[in-house]
This record gives sequence, structure tokens and C-alpha cells, in this order.
Amino acid sequence: MEVLNRAAASCILTLCFACLHVIALKSQLLTRHGGLPFSTEPPITYETFYFDQKIDHFGFLEDGTFKQRYLVAAKHWQQPGGPILFYTGNEGDITWFCNNTGFMWEIAEELGAMLVFAEHRYYGESLPFGQDSYSDSKHLNYLSSEQALADFAVLIRSLKQTLPGAQHSPVIAVGGSYGGMLSAWFRMKYPNIVVGALAASAPIWQFPGMVPCGDFYKVVTQDFARSGYNCDANIRKSWKAINNVSSSASGLQWLSEEFSLCAPLKNKIGAVGFKNWLQETWVNLAMVDYPYEANFLQPLPRWPIQVVCKHLAFDSTVSDHQLLQGLSQAAKVYYNFTGSSSCLNTSQTATSSLGLLGWFYQACTEMVMPMCTDGVQDMFEPEEWNFQAFSDECNVMFGVRPRADWADIVYGGKNIASHSNIIFSNGGLDPWSAGGVTHNITDSLVSIMIPDGAHHLDLRYSNDHDPPSVRQARALEVKYFREWIKQAKKKHHPA
Amino acid sequence: MEVLNRAAASCILTLCFACLHVIALKSQLLTRHGGLPFSTEPPITYETFYFDQKIDHFGFLEDGTFKQRYLVAAKHWQQPGGPILFYTGNEGDITWFCNNTGFMWEIAEELGAMLVFAEHRYYGESLPFGQDSYSDSKHLNYLSSEQALADFAVLIRSLKQTLPGAQHSPVIAVGGSYGGMLSAWFRMKYPNIVVGALAASAPIWQFPGMVPCGDFYKVVTQDFARSGYNCDANIRKSWKAINNVSSSASGLQWLSEEFSLCAPLKNKIGAVGFKNWLQETWVNLAMVDYPYEANFLQPLPRWPIQVVCKHLAFDSTVSDHQLLQGLSQAAKVYYNFTGSSSCLNTSQTATSSLGLLGWFYQACTEMVMPMCTDGVQDMFEPEEWNFQAFSDECNVMFGVRPRADWADIVYGGKNIASHSNIIFSNGGLDPWSAGGVTHNITDSLVSIMIPDGAHHLDLRYSNDHDPPSVRQARALEVKYFREWIKQAKKKHHPA
Repeated sequence: MEVLNRAAASCILTLCFACLHVIALKSQLLTRHGGLPFSTEPPITYETFYFDQKIDHFGFLEDGTFKQRYLVAAKHWQQPGGPILFYTGNEGDITWFCNNTGFMWEIAEELGAMLVFAEHRYYGESLPFGQDSYSDSKHLNYLSSEQALADFAVLIRSLKQTLPGAQHSPVIAVGGSYGGMLSAWFRMKYPNIVVGALAASAPIWQFPGMVPCGDFYKVVTQDFARSGYNCDANIRKSWKAINNVSSSASGLQWLSEEFSLCAPLKNKIGAVGFKNWLQETWVNLAMVDYPYEANFLQPLPRWPIQVVCKHLAFDSTVSDHQLLQGLSQAAKVYYNFTGSSSCLNTSQTATSSLGLLGWFYQACTEMVMPMCTDGVQDMFEPEEWNFQAFSDECNVMFGVRPRADWADIVYGGKNIASHSNIIFSNGGLDPWSAGGVTHNITDSLVSIMIPDGAHHLDLRYSNDHDPPSVRQARALEVKYFREWIKQAKKKHHPA
Repeated sequence: MEVLNRAAASCILTLCFACLHVIALKSQLLTRHGGLPFSTEPPITYETFYFDQKIDHFGFLEDGTFKQRYLVAAKHWQQPGGPILFYTGNEGDITWFCNNTGFMWEIAEELGAMLVFAEHRYYGESLPFGQDSYSDSKHLNYLSSEQALADFAVLIRSLKQTLPGAQHSPVIAVGGSYGGMLSAWFRMKYPNIVVGALAASAPIWQFPGMVPCGDFYKVVTQDFARSGYNCDANIRKSWKAINNVSSSASGLQWLSEEFSLCAPLKNKIGAVGFKNWLQETWVNLAMVDYPYEANFLQPLPRWPIQVVCKHLAFDSTVSDHQLLQGLSQAAKVYYNFTGSSSCLNTSQTATSSLGLLGWFYQACTEMVMPMCTDGVQDMFEPEEWNFQAFSDECNVMFGVRPRADWADIVYGGKNIASHSNIIFSNGGLDPWSAGGVTHNITDSLVSIMIPDGAHHLDLRYSNDHDPPSVRQARALEVKYFREWIKQAKKKHHPA
């Protein structure tokens, strides 16, 4: 059974390597208010509804429906005809996205807008087959971005038909990360339904053949390089130090104690998992390197990478054990900033929660996002992108094989210039910007760069410590929204 | 069992009423050369290929493939980079469309274009499950326009990747009737794959809520009204005459003999089927009212409706029997112009051929096209559009229910102004123009009207008897093609 176990472990790890960074976004569904000392946001209120959605929009044999959850806040809505800001939910509980998209809450009043947050099928409470939704590949068969977009389209159509005053309301799609990809694709595929889209930190080009597979980890590395003396260099060194130390049982024990691991490392596979967990940690830090104390993935200090790097400012003479002691302190900035964790759990980002499995499945079907490292231009152990191995693992896990070209064919890849009214916002610190649209494509397919922003900083509540770039970005986004709304109104009331 | 039989008969008839007009296009797969006295076309040659296409583009559980047939004519192709004219096959054998789309063959040389004709899944030889493809609703589940468009996209992607010199070839979609709808939708949904589309006689608005359900039959009626004295009035009268005569056994026998029916009418249900068959005949004549002898649905004289109407030029004093004698002569213009038919077969357009069933299934799922008659503004017996009854019949036939709103949601309905590079050509004589785009929507979403043209006359070979309007239409279409090709080349070779 050992071989099988090894294969299974390798399988999980490789999948994590490729896609956990997005999953991490929802691995801890923390509330918005926890640990936010600078929080000045008013309390938010919304109503929760459930819409009977077809399980299969693209076939007629399966005619069943499920309850899609969506949240509505109409307090500031100016009916009739006031705009609707529609959050295209991503791979997690929609209430979490609702709570973490302060931008929408802050602009609702000035736009006279209704807010709608729609949950993505197979996540949160929107399970097509209830508890059986993840039971096998047959039940998972309706988990796809196309089905999710169709859900959004059908829901909006219904809202406009049934809500008094909504008939002529222009709808703008808003989303971050995978939700941002959905927003962009939604405008591309259903321009009849949404007049425009804000795709925040949406890596729509993180697909085969569109961007170099190493760019993602290069951005992570740059974040660390700029945040402290020798910070990236010492992380680059740390992998060999871990290999050296973990080659003996006593070394494994020392490592486990030094990092206060809840489950001590027992063998080489454990050490591999440990390194993946650390790699994941540095990636997550790059994503949430916000300029103020925040609690998105974890409660963290302001500019957390700077704090992390203070523990890694060794020069080249550092010993393996010294380096790893610093590394342990660095990791604890991420995992134990509040001091409330008694031990660190290395399986934390690899739980088999529904959301995690859901994104695994999506990565194993459509969302094929090649990533690789070389240890030179980035601070990680070299690992090539191996599609065949990835495909084989997907086949073992789900009985499906990813289609490497499909996203490019169905969503246009680099050839999207004929579309319109999409804002692609990206943060310069965010590794996902590597797969994002970071230049204007046309006058109405625009890129907004936030050089000192991490993962969709613009979607968060405004904060006193916000850099000018994100303030400007939000102002520009609202300006585009107003333009789109004006265009739409002109259509219904031509001069 | 009588009730069930009646229900089944009514089921078939109502379905025919709603959708047979398109089906009729392929009910007889005649060759292009048969009965074409004005034929001046050079013989056409193409190569036949088969592409391994995924059975399900939108799910990953069904990972099987089938052989999609496509035809290629590269004689005039100027590689590298010469354009590709891509016929988006509709509900029938692709060789028939290939032979009946002379326009593409005639412009290939001047454009230096390769011609590709792709067969629509579930028709002709492109059967996803071979002989089982139509065996039940489970096997029919992958018959949809979305799957067909995805087939086209994947095929084109593959051609461009594998054919030397095709990598930068701009592709233009061309199609007529349902194939024209597919062309338009293809450009809307996959602008990354095709630079533009010619949607000839494509009733993309023949869906619920977009055009009045009676417009289709109004156009048919107008065609007859303008083609001879009292022609529409006498057809309008004929239904009552049939009812009167068919109320007795001897009347049924007389009718059967007068019309030389292969299978004599036996009862009221037979008479209902007879009237449906006649209605279908007048509709087909309106579709193929071409200005020259042609053999599209049947071998016919030039301006066949004028010939038909010569037999129906009675004034108001005509008796039922006289009227029906004229009607019989009129019907024989359509069914026996060559004099080779020994009897007329009223089940001819209601065979259970694969193609017929396929379009029934599509009508029973996505292609919900409301039609109705009132007997006042049209020359037919009044019949309302009854969605619920239609849905129930679909449920009986296939175990599926149509989704009335889906086409509007997924393909944009009247709200398509954000798309670009689509020509909608329509013939003023063609009843399908009632559901077509007959006005310019934007500068690059244009309508070309051919007032004296029937069903996609512009796609046919040029003919000495072509009216100026269709010559101009074809010239304008080529002009747009050149413009799109130029736009595309500019993209790959910016100045």
C-alpha cells in the first residue's frame, strides 16, 4: 500500500502546487470584522434569497433544479432603473465575498445601486445535489464556469423581470480573483445581460501558452526581495537547509519542534509536504501584502512581508539551523500573529473541504493554470510544469482529464479585443497579476494597475493607509461604471 | 388506444406546424445538378475529412469523441494567411449545403480563400453515438447549438494549428437559415475564432417575445397575394372547402383522387394531416420562390408561386369542388413539375428520418419558435401559439421540455448591439425574414435586404435571371469580407 499512498500524496501535493493559491482564498472563511483594528465600515445588512436554478443549462435530459443562494442589499437602490452591481461569486461561501468586497458597499449610495451577491454553484450553500454534490464525478459534472455564468445570466434575467423597477436597470458585473475572471467572461459571453464588468485581480491569461509559467512565482519572489535585506535569497536557501536537516530523524524532530508543528514530521514525504506548505505560505503572504492590518486569509500586521523579512535578514554565512529558526519566526508571522495558535497545522491548506475539492475539480477540468519555478528567477525549488502528470493525477482523483486548450477557445485568450466595457485591475504585488491583463487592449477594455496593491486591494473597504494608487483606481472604476450606466440609459431613453 | 393515437398524431402535427419549414430544407437531399437547366457552374471538388470531436464540450464526465465530417476545398487558397470561408453546417447532410452554397464557390478565387464546410453534429454522417444517436433522450442530450458552435470552434482551432500556412488565416463564418443563425451566434460567442459572419436568412429573432408570432405566415400570404389574382384569398377559402368536402367518405375519396394521393384519406385525422401538408407546401413555395428554374426542395419552374397562382385565379363564385381542383393543380406544380410523380405523398415532409427527428429535438429544447395564424392577416386557418401544449408534446416525444427563454438569454435576443462584423441578409419573399434582422443595428452589424429574394438566394450560384438586388447583395457581402480580412491582417502585421 505504500506505493499507492505515495502516489496519492504526490497527487494532492502537485495539485496544490498548481492551484492552491486560489483555493487558499477561501480556506478560512473568516468574518470581515475579526481583527480589523482600522475598521471604520458601517455594519452591512442584506437579505438572503434562493433561486431555483437549472442543474444543467446545456442539456435537457437533467431537468432538475437546485437552490442558488444570493444576497441582496437594496437600501440605496434608486428605482426605477437604478443600476445593479452584481458580484459574480467565486469558489467559496458567498457571504465571505460579500463581507470582503467593501468597495461595492461604499459606492452603492453614490450610484443609487442595488447590490447582489450571487453564489457560485457547488460552493457555500449552493449545492446542486446537496450533500451528494461531491460524491463522485457524475455529480460533479455540472461544476464549470460556463454553467456558473449561465446561472448568473438566468438569475439576472429573472430579477429584472420580477423586481418592480428593475426592468431597465443596467447591471454591472464585479468580481475578484476567479470571481473577476467570471466577471470578465460574463461580459464577453453575455453582453446582453451586463453592460460592463470590473475584473479585479483576474488572471484570465494564466492558461497554457498565454504567459510564461514562471511569472507567478517571480512576482512572489520580487515581493520578498523588496521587503527586506536578503529576504528572497534566504528563502531560496531554506529549501536546501530543510533537505539537509530533514535527512535525519533527529533533524525532523528538531524542525517539527522549531516550527511548533501540530503533527511532527515523520519522513521524507512529510518534509515534502512541509516545503509545499511553506511555499504556499509565502504565496499567500504575497497575495495579502496589504498596507494595513487586515484579516483576509489570516490576521496579519500591516505590510506583513516586511515583518516576515525581519526574521530572514541573514547574510551568506548563516547556518542551516539559524536560517530555519528565522524561517520559523517568519512563518509564525503568518500563522500566529495574534499569538493564539498553540501549534501550526501543515495540512491547513490541504483540507478536503468542499470548496477545496471544488476548485481541485475545476483545475482538473477547465482551469488549467500552468505554473513552474526555476530557483533562479524565483526563490523556490525548481519544478517544471508537467501537463501529462497533472492530467494523470486528475484522472486518478476524479476520473476526468483537463482540457488544456478549452479555456483559450471558449474565452478567447489573448484575442479579446472585440469585446468592450471591461476593467482589468491588477496589483503590482499580487502574483496573480502575472496572468492578468496589465495593459489597455482598447478604449473600453482597460487595465488599471495598482503598483503597491496586493490581491484585489481595490475591492476592499477603503482605509486610511490605502496608497494613492488604489484610491485613484477606485475613483476611475466608479467613473467607468457611471459611463456604462449612462450608455445604457441612453439606449432606453434615446434623445 | 385511440386517445393515445390521436395525441401522438396531434403531437407530430403541432411540431410540424412550428418547425417543419426549416426541416423541409433537408427533407430531400437532392444533388445540385439535378434539373438545373440554367446551370453554368463548374464542377466542384472537395476533400472529405473527419475530426475527432468531444461528445460533450461542457462537461468532463463524458470524455468520448465522435467523427465530425468536414469538407475542404483549398484549390484557390493563397497560403500563407489566405482567408478561410467556413460554412457552419445546419440540420442536414453537409454535402447538400456544400452543393447548394454556390456563392462560396464563386468567390473563393477572388478572395484566395479556402472553403471549409463543417457538418453539424447529429446530422449527416456526424453522429455522436452512431446508429444509437437518436435512440433515446440520453443519447440526444448533446444535440444543441452550443455544442455545435463549440465543435466549430475546436475544429477551426485545430485546422489553424495543423494546416501549414493557416496559422494567421482569418476565418469568416457563412451560413444560411439555421446555419445562418449559427454563423451569427458563432461570431457573437467566439469572436476570437471568426473575424466576421454572413448570416443569410437567419431568423435569430423568431423566438418568444421578439417578433409577433403571426409575421411568418403573413409573409407567405403576401407572396401569394402578389403573385396572381385572388391567389391568397382562394387559398384562405380552401380550408373550409376541404372541411366541407372531407366531411363525407365519398368526399374524402374524391379529394384523394383529385390530388392523386398515394395514401387515400380515411378520416378526419387524415384530413387534418392533409391540410397541414398543404400549408407546408405553400410555405415551402414561399421559401423557394426563386426567379429561375431551380431544384432546391423540389424541381420547380421560375417564379413558382406565379405558376401555382395561375391555377387559383378564381373569383368569389367558385364552388368548393372547382376550388379544390385548382388547388390540386397548384399543389402539383410543387410536387410534380417534372411529371415524374405517379402520386403525391402527404407524409413526405413528416418522415422520421434522422434529420427530421434531430430538428424536432432542437425545437423541443432550445429552438422555440412561436408561430401562429389568424386567417385574416394570413391565408391559413387560425391557430394560436400554445407553449404549454407544445411543451407537453415535447415531453411525450422526447422526455424533455423546451426552455422558452433560453435562446434569448444565451444569444442576446434584441440586445446584440455590442457585437460586430455580422451581415444579416434577408429576402423580402422569404417568410423567415419575419424573424430576421432587417435593419442595421450598428455600423458593423448590418442588414442587407433583397426585396425580390426568397430563402438565402444570395448564397446560391449566380444566375442570369438573378435580380439586381441579389447581385448587389453579394457584391456588398464580398466587400465586407474584404474589410474584415484587412482588419485581421492589420492585427498580425501592424504598420
